Amino acid sequence: MKNLETKLPENIKTLKPYVSGKTIAEVKALYQPAQISKLASNENRLGFSKLVKDSVLKALDGIQDYPDPLALQLRRELARRYSVGEKEILLGAGSESLISIICRTFFKDHENAITADATFVGFFVQAGVRGIEVKKVPVTNEYKFDVLNILNTVDESTKMVYIANPNNPTGTYLNQKEYENLLSGLPDDVLLIVDEAYFEYAQPVTDYPNALANRRENVIVLRTFSKAYGLAGFRIGYAIADENLIREMTKTKLTFEPATPAQAAALASLQDEEFIKRGVDMVEKGKKRLYDFFDLQGVKYVKSAANSVLMVLESDQQAEVFTQNMLAEGVILRRVNGFGLPHCVRITIGTEREMNHFEESFLKINQPL
Amino acid sequence: MKNLETKLPENIKTLKPYVSGKTIAEVKALYQPAQISKLASNENRLGFSKLVKDSVLKALDGIQDYPDPLALQLRRELARRYSVGEKEILLGAGSESLISIICRTFFKDHENAITADATFVGFFVQAGVRGIEVKKVPVTNEYKFDVLNILNTVDESTKMVYIANPNNPTGTYLNQKEYENLLSGLPDDVLLIVDEAYFEYAQPVTDYPNALANRRENVIVLRTFSKAYGLAGFRIGYAIADENLIREMTKTKLTFEPATPAQAAALASLQDEEFIKRGVDMVEKGKKRLYDFFDLQGVKYVKSAANSVLMVLESDQQAEVFTQNMLAEGVILRRVNGFGLPHCVRITIGTEREMNHFEESFLKINQPL
Repeated sequence: MKNLETKLPENIKTLKPYVSGKTIAEVKALYQPAQISKLASNENRLGFSKLVKDSVLKALDGIQDYPDPLALQLRRELARRYSVGEKEILLGAGSESLISIICRTFFKDHENAITADATFVGFFVQAGVRGIEVKKVPVTNEYKFDVLNILNTVDESTKMVYIANPNNPTGTYLNQKEYENLLSGLPDDVLLIVDEAYFEYAQPVTDYPNALANRRENVIVLRTFSKAYGLAGFRIGYAIADENLIREMTKTKLTFEPATPAQAAALASLQDEEFIKRGVDMVEKGKKRLYDFFDLQGVKYVKSAANSVLMVLESDQQAEVFTQNMLAEGVILRRVNGFGLPHCVRITIGTEREMNHFEESFLKINQPL
Repeated sequence: MKNLETKLPENIKTLKPYVSGKTIAEVKALYQPAQISKLASNENRLGFSKLVKDSVLKALDGIQDYPDPLALQLRRELARRYSVGEKEILLGAGSESLISIICRTFFKDHENAITADATFVGFFVQAGVRGIEVKKVPVTNEYKFDVLNILNTVDESTKMVYIANPNNPTGTYLNQKEYENLLSGLPDDVLLIVDEAYFEYAQPVTDYPNALANRRENVIVLRTFSKAYGLAGFRIGYAIADENLIREMTKTKLTFEPATPAQAAALASLQDEEFIKRGVDMVEKGKKRLYDFFDLQGVKYVKSAANSVLMVLESDQQAEVFTQNMLAEGVILRRVNGFGLPHCVRITIGTEREMNHFEESFLKINQPL
């Protein structure tokens, strides 16, 4: 192995893998808390649609066969729903897989990507796997993507700009005008990836842009079933883009992603708009309540268009201590050092019971902020 | 897009994606046959273990949460079962995903891989996605990997040799001695990928090598739940290798593969050895019967250690006509041009009823061979 190790590609040797949030089982084993509130991974704390179980059970008949590689039924339904062509949609095993597909498909060596210094760690990791240089433009004082600075960073070797809208972990968003400025300022041959993992949660925001309207040929929109739809365990998401881009991405996706149960669960979930609405309402109420609580406690935070709120602490050390103390109370939060914000902590908005648990634990540990 | 298209990497522009076998729904729509026998994709025609449904149903509680990225429970069970360390196992979304992970992890530009000219198309595709030059060594007259020729092809830029054992689509295998020759002839810093997707079906073969015994640090063994376990629709498989290799591969796998239902289904399936045995017995009987039938009909074929048999026809044209005629009868077979054998057709061994359907349809179309 010594020989093999010295021969590893440099980008792999130095790669820091995505470290995910703690699981409930891990926390149980460590602290045996009376209650566990998993507010770490921006999952839907309401669960998932009641339509999912029957649909998945049905799909198990025939599970010895490979999945439909083109996800025909699901693509048809998404095409109808969003008024796009079936050939403009690609299903993948979650946004992370779609980002990996994009990195595998479009980059030549020595081409770069541009994004913010504080955004989805999965993009940093997947770009790193492909050995792509990522130019990280600092977020603004309001923790937003800095459109002007991003445009000024584009050079001859730039293949792609990645934004998450709303952004993760900040929860901030580019509004219609800012998004248009970005789009119109980009050269035609630079791809714009718009990761809309939190799309559904941003719907109440009036000036949140509709990236599917007036699409350009260089735009790839990413959506997922892992957040509002509550299907993170299945691994399924999709890209919407010009069919020429989708055709090339189809070549590099794994033949049989996403899996059969994932396709079935997603298809069933699309029929349950009431479930999505309840989840979005819960998050709206939960955010408002958390803002009020933080205002009262004198905690700094960033207002969010997603299903999480970013706490801004004084130091990396404080963020670490706070997260650890909350963990011992059974409240699992997410430090976001991997996302470029080591002095911040991300809180997923949960159910009323979970938010009670958060507030009580916060007051109990009485962490001086 | 014109600009974008001309700027695509050369390996992506020219990439031929994996084209999978026809689905039952497609064949129904095309021909409305009285019976459909899907003998095209080497799935388990017995289905899957009865233990799977309950286990998956249970796993659906909590499916809104991300999967265990380390698949701890399943790794523990596999480690116990095969007497290897937990850190020597990596779970992935099927063998295709594990091959993709290997290509992403270990290759620098301008390094090459060596395999046969007639082997699993998924390897050709995934190597192509990474832009890896694949040196294809012709199979022997017996459709086997040509060990001596492979060893002679290794050069300074060779990073890896890929073999499938038993091979797909030929069903041939390297025996203990041939495998040892390959292993001992390879330089220490050349990886040997041993794709054992059909491992369980080869167990009745007395001189089939045990790749886990006397492992070297440069060997990666791949296994899958898609074949004998009948879980192809879930997408799950695993790699066993030195923990230094597994550690690097863990960096480039998707964080949350394999999905939660896949982990649950695999874990349950491991408890049902009787189901595996029944499937292997069915395949043994089915192969014997098919050999006898082909001998009687004067059809050329290759004896198989897997769950499929390769028919050798006179020409590409004949292979195409035969496959089409059988399809019209409802028997889905697999042409294997993508695998490098355009004059051959691969037949998955199915149930007695399906093999009856195959023979009756064969006699009915009375294709002159």
